[in-house]
Amino acid sequence: MKNSKKVVVIGGVACGPKAAARIKRLNPETEVTVIEKGELLSYAGCGLPFYIAGEVENYNELMTTPTGVIRDSNFFKMVKDINVKNHTLAKSVDREKKIVYAVCVNTGDAVELPYDSLILAVGSKYQVPPIEGKELKGVNFLQTVEDSRKIREESGSLKGKNAVIIGAGLIGIEVAEAFKKQGMNVTVIERLNSAMGELLDPEIAYHLHNELKANNVLLKLGETVTKINDDGLGCVKSLTTDKGEYPADIVLIAVGVRPNIRLAKEMGLEIGETTGAIKVDRHMRTSDPDIYAGGDCVENNNLITGKPIYTPMGSTANKHGRVIADNICGIDSEFRGVPGTAICKFFNFNVARTGLTEARAKSEGFDYITVLSPSPDKPHFIKDAKLIIIKFIVDRKTKKLLGAQIAGPGDVAKRMDVAAVNIISGSSVTDISHYDLAYAPPFSPAMDNIITAANIAENKLNGFGSSYTPVEVKEKIDNNEDFILLDVRSQQEFEQMRIDDSRVKLIPLGKLRSCLDELPKDKEIIPFCKISLRGYEAERILTGEGYLKVKYLDGGIICWPYEKIT
Amino acid sequence: MKNSKKVVVIGGVACGPKAAARIKRLNPETEVTVIEKGELLSYAGCGLPFYIAGEVENYNELMTTPTGVIRDSNFFKMVKDINVKNHTLAKSVDREKKIVYAVCVNTGDAVELPYDSLILAVGSKYQVPPIEGKELKGVNFLQTVEDSRKIREESGSLKGKNAVIIGAGLIGIEVAEAFKKQGMNVTVIERLNSAMGELLDPEIAYHLHNELKANNVLLKLGETVTKINDDGLGCVKSLTTDKGEYPADIVLIAVGVRPNIRLAKEMGLEIGETTGAIKVDRHMRTSDPDIYAGGDCVENNNLITGKPIYTPMGSTANKHGRVIADNICGIDSEFRGVPGTAICKFFNFNVARTGLTEARAKSEGFDYITVLSPSPDKPHFIKDAKLIIIKFIVDRKTKKLLGAQIAGPGDVAKRMDVAAVNIISGSSVTDISHYDLAYAPPFSPAMDNIITAANIAENKLNGFGSSYTPVEVKEKIDNNEDFILLDVRSQQEFEQMRIDDSRVKLIPLGKLRSCLDELPKDKEIIPFCKISLRGYEAERILTGEGYLKVKYLDGGIICWPYEKIT
Repeated sequence: MKNSKKVVVIGGVACGPKAAARIKRLNPETEVTVIEKGELLSYAGCGLPFYIAGEVENYNELMTTPTGVIRDSNFFKMVKDINVKNHTLAKSVDREKKIVYAVCVNTGDAVELPYDSLILAVGSKYQVPPIEGKELKGVNFLQTVEDSRKIREESGSLKGKNAVIIGAGLIGIEVAEAFKKQGMNVTVIERLNSAMGELLDPEIAYHLHNELKANNVLLKLGETVTKINDDGLGCVKSLTTDKGEYPADIVLIAVGVRPNIRLAKEMGLEIGETTGAIKVDRHMRTSDPDIYAGGDCVENNNLITGKPIYTPMGSTANKHGRVIADNICGIDSEFRGVPGTAICKFFNFNVARTGLTEARAKSEGFDYITVLSPSPDKPHFIKDAKLIIIKFIVDRKTKKLLGAQIAGPGDVAKRMDVAAVNIISGSSVTDISHYDLAYAPPFSPAMDNIITAANIAENKLNGFGSSYTPVEVKEKIDNNEDFILLDVRSQQEFEQMRIDDSRVKLIPLGKLRSCLDELPKDKEIIPFCKISLRGYEAERILTGEGYLKVKYLDGGIICWPYEKIT
Repeated sequence: MKNSKKVVVIGGVACGPKAAARIKRLNPETEVTVIEKGELLSYAGCGLPFYIAGEVENYNELMTTPTGVIRDSNFFKMVKDINVKNHTLAKSVDREKKIVYAVCVNTGDAVELPYDSLILAVGSKYQVPPIEGKELKGVNFLQTVEDSRKIREESGSLKGKNAVIIGAGLIGIEVAEAFKKQGMNVTVIERLNSAMGELLDPEIAYHLHNELKANNVLLKLGETVTKINDDGLGCVKSLTTDKGEYPADIVLIAVGVRPNIRLAKEMGLEIGETTGAIKVDRHMRTSDPDIYAGGDCVENNNLITGKPIYTPMGSTANKHGRVIADNICGIDSEFRGVPGTAICKFFNFNVARTGLTEARAKSEGFDYITVLSPSPDKPHFIKDAKLIIIKFIVDRKTKKLLGAQIAGPGDVAKRMDVAAVNIISGSSVTDISHYDLAYAPPFSPAMDNIITAANIAENKLNGFGSSYTPVEVKEKIDNNEDFILLDVRSQQEFEQMRIDDSRVKLIPLGKLRSCLDELPKDKEIIPFCKISLRGYEAERILTGEGYLKVKYLDGGIICWPYEKIT
């Protein structure tokens, strides 16, 4: 029996080929067939924006192995002994007879594929918003290599012309850079009030907004596109929103993706209620024990909340493929879930996140503290030291990280990986303080940024150092509350950049102990500095001197996401 | 009582000031005094090679806060309310009376400092090997800012002249780069057979050796300096080794450091037998419960073996300082130990390590497997993707990482931090396969390099894919064993670079299934490719076809640390 085991894989991009290849490596005698409705197999979907940007010159590079071999049907047969049928669309599945009914889209020929185990790796599909004019020439979606070729060809002749991107998510931001690199004027229109809206809190998104502006991308937040307008010849001319009109020679609609569940639904497989994606257990098994599913078509377990989430990622799809292959070959592998890590580069700026945002932690009912810690990613005496800002959201009860967001021109990815591994390992934020990370001046400060952030969290959890977030201080200002916003930086720093408010008072930290008579004990005092290390020390000094109403401004002036005088 | 608590700190570089500052933040009423025998406080000792290189222009930058304030006695008094006595040498301690007896080195005045808690943060001292001529002018050691100023001044006029470094450890390598940047001819002489000898295994050290050569540093391994020769005027002229003679206009002796234990020994505190450093418990307490010690003068707990190790690191010293402050202030903090992480940059090459080397794992009696996994640090279609090589040593029984070494021009630090956190978290190597790391093409492949290495480890632990290390294959060649070294790369790759041995046979992987008659079943076959993914697939194919004696060459030709034809 073992020798004749048949596995059919529907979907040939990431999870499918990964599972197929591993099954053949584990059990060479298994007969594996992959069907793919498109032409191309195993392509790097995440690389498409970089092809549009011209950074990847030839689109074939997106489909080759690192040594330059194209992964076509012949490659899969000769190298992996996997049967690949591309241009083949799965029409239906008879779960009782265990047969996949497919059709060759070129010839119309019917194909019947019996299976012992079936793998659904059918991916996702971009969302199509109900906007009039979305079918006009020049309006694009981005999913396949073909899509990216079309966009690059069109945009190649649009130097100096207008590109509009609908949606400021990960793809929208990457393509904004690509369009800028093609020499276009770029506008990004986003329905929510911040870029990467549900992935970031305002203090972090603020820095991304600044970076978009600094690179001459016009970012319109809280604005909804209502119509895409025709030039009279069937091409896009402009976009109308609820707030204005924007000329457009090319448009990309990037408002997210949805799991492909047509087949799964027709087959009667269980679908996740909140996610709309295929439900799988820890073995990546659907509600039919002979059918596995993985990649962008399934939901994941959120490691923080234990609830299902939909987080389509190429990195996760590969992990799913491996777990599916193991289970089909009798190895008891589990996929435990994800905290939801993501990262995005925009020119020289990096922004990453994992776990819950503060907004989400609040709505989930967690009792939490937050940390905002900006500092250079290397010792300040190393020439290419660059700023990164770390935000932590920490559960007060368990002392575990609920989420982390890191942004800046510096090395964000390295610290985000540490945060993600901390969460996945079930460790507490205070464990980070003990991490023996790789230290030498070209790589990090002696106390790595993430260790500093963890130390601040530990202080706060232990009741040392209480702070306001920038959002809270702004609310107090807007409510006309009476307090002293105590700037403890130097006169020179103050002159270079300061918060413009009548509550601001400057007393450099070195003079604070001798200037206490200038600070009434009955008034609330909110000290801060550049990054709020001195702000924290001021808080400790004042508390030590018997001041009762002192909380420092978290993150200092660097993390103040509102107007500043410079 | 609490209000009058007195803390004395001996040593003002890293651990000492850190502990002092935190004590003041936690308990502002504590009286804290720091004594330091030198002039300078809180300087960045790890930055000295970068000052010599000219990358740090002004040595003051090594002593300032990130906002440019020099941390002198006045700074500590005004900002931190800490009393600092520099130029003050601790002579002895009366542990019964709890008094430190010190002397001002400038005036000779005696100083008596009573304490409730004492902190020894007296650091380390470079080792002075018993070489004749080491006191000659031009022969240097590197520990203080003064040392680095002297070396930079001397080397400033030595463009085109000869520098010799004794010792190819972390400092030796960093200063080799610094001397090259100053325009000198650089020779590094190392007693052991590889650079960073006890920190790396041969397959990884090999790439560091190549990098030194590629940057015109003459590396002499397994060679011992016997004499430093005089030019007749009291200056260095050349070095004599057991193998030759080298002209030298400047010499740096960098053969490691030893903990400063003079005072601790005289006080009768317990000293670690194997390390020769001060013994402390998890609270950083010495054998006298009122005396704490931290930084480069203490031993650490090796998290892998549970045995004491001596691993002086600036990053660890800061952590010690924090734990000491906590315990003195009544917070029950522990320092659990370190796996021994270290990283070094040499021009555009990075090398990092944590845990045990293979050599050490063997001598400790572990039953282990190893993985050698080379791959680009980003998808191959991203232009600045660069190679990194990961070596794992994994305990066969617990499936835990015993050690990791990573080297290459790519992003080594990021993966090393993940490996270190994995070890510190007590997780297994197979947990790495599940890590939801920050993925986007500018940052990593969809399956991050470290996940690939973990997957290979898991395969090996499960009995899928057996391999030989390069060292083992070289031994078989040297023993004239009969086997086929099966290169499964393309003809083109073969022509660009190949292993020069009569056992080598080329059959590209795509043709392997149809060329089985060329491979006798009774002969041992060792397949390999560029990185040995195809080598592994060849092994799976041959094993599936009934070949019994097949093991692939781990790491492929990229990790082959011996002669190659190019």
